[in-house]
Amino acid sequence: MAAEAQELKAEPRSARKRRAIVEAATAVFLRNGYLGTSMDEIAALAGVSKQTVYKHFADKKRLFSEIVSSTVDEVSEAVHNEVLKLEDSGDLKADLGDLARRQLAAVMQPRLLQLRRLVIGEAGRFPELGRVFYERGPGRTVSALATIFERLRARGMLVLDDPLLAAHHFNWLIMSIPLNEAMLLGHDAPLARADLDRYADAGVGVFLAAYGRR
Amino acid sequence: MAAEAQELKAEPRSARKRRAIVEAATAVFLRNGYLGTSMDEIAALAGVSKQTVYKHFADKKRLFSEIVSSTVDEVSEAVHNEVLKLEDSGDLKADLGDLARRQLAAVMQPRLLQLRRLVIGEAGRFPELGRVFYERGPGRTVSALATIFERLRARGMLVLDDPLLAAHHFNWLIMSIPLNEAMLLGHDAPLARADLDRYADAGVGVFLAAYGRR
Repeated sequence: MAAEAQELKAEPRSARKRRAIVEAATAVFLRNGYLGTSMDEIAALAGVSKQTVYKHFADKKRLFSEIVSSTVDEVSEAVHNEVLKLEDSGDLKADLGDLARRQLAAVMQPRLLQLRRLVIGEAGRFPELGRVFYERGPGRTVSALATIFERLRARGMLVLDDPLLAAHHFNWLIMSIPLNEAMLLGHDAPLARADLDRYADAGVGVFLAAYGRR
Repeated sequence: MAAEAQELKAEPRSARKRRAIVEAATAVFLRNGYLGTSMDEIAALAGVSKQTVYKHFADKKRLFSEIVSSTVDEVSEAVHNEVLKLEDSGDLKADLGDLARRQLAAVMQPRLLQLRRLVIGEAGRFPELGRVFYERGPGRTVSALATIFERLRARGMLVLDDPLLAAHHFNWLIMSIPLNEAMLLGHDAPLARADLDRYADAGVGVFLAAYGRR
């Protein structure tokens, strides 16, 4: 009984430590880059021993991979839910516009921009980290868009013969301009919402000119 | 006379050394990243003394900036000349297709992809390096496209009211899919030319659906 009670109490404590490690690691990785980060520094900032860090994460790469997954999933999950809602759209221009504005605002969050830059910078050395980001982020969104676009085509709302290509076009028409600028120029300060909305609406306009019902 | 002859001979020798330094530095930066590169290593690979490196380039940042400029300029200059040729186009679909295919092949060169990744990875710490890449690369291309698109609009070949936005849309419709994949997935091996051409042609199709003459 005593051992069991202790185990029940130990579990949340372990989860708390894990969360502290992930938060500290995110801060240190984003500040110092992948190579510039040591497990010692993460342990110190999290207020745990280095052994505790290694108990939760076998090595630095797995810890970084966990941060990439959880940060990307958080954004990607929200976008995914927005994409699924499109299926029953009765006003595609308005609904694509809503999706595009939300998607762009989500992707342009400073922390995600910083992480994306870091992952790209390391993609030559550690392509598996970039793969996690790609597959759980843009890859997942584009794949969901393709499924929904095919259903919208079947309903006569879109005209297309390659749903995956159309999904890529939509995704990048919305995001490319501010995202590529932010990547190279190192901007993390959020753009004005009005500017993001303008890019989103203009992207939807081009998309519908190409793929909308005549 | 003797001093003058020596000076004439000294000039090419200095230029040769400078070229050797730039070539060595490119190799070391792309292999080890910005932080992982030392002037010592560059000097050793170039076969010159460290003093000679510092005589040509005051510090590591200026040397890296020189590499970014010269690599980006080489590609950007070729694309720029292609863009200018559009002005007199009689068959916009064919000529935009040609431009798009050449532009995409140029931007997807392995060395430029590696450098782009490196610059993005450092853009948080050294935004001025990303600014050099952006302004001499995509920024320059988009600006030239906007000028030409405005002239094509005046000739009745395009329908648009924001030439700069249309230029961004063209640029990223052509490049976003393979470029963003390559950035995150760490692919440097050149994509099959047929795949690049397919992205280029599809991008031109969407662009003309939105901005072409009805």
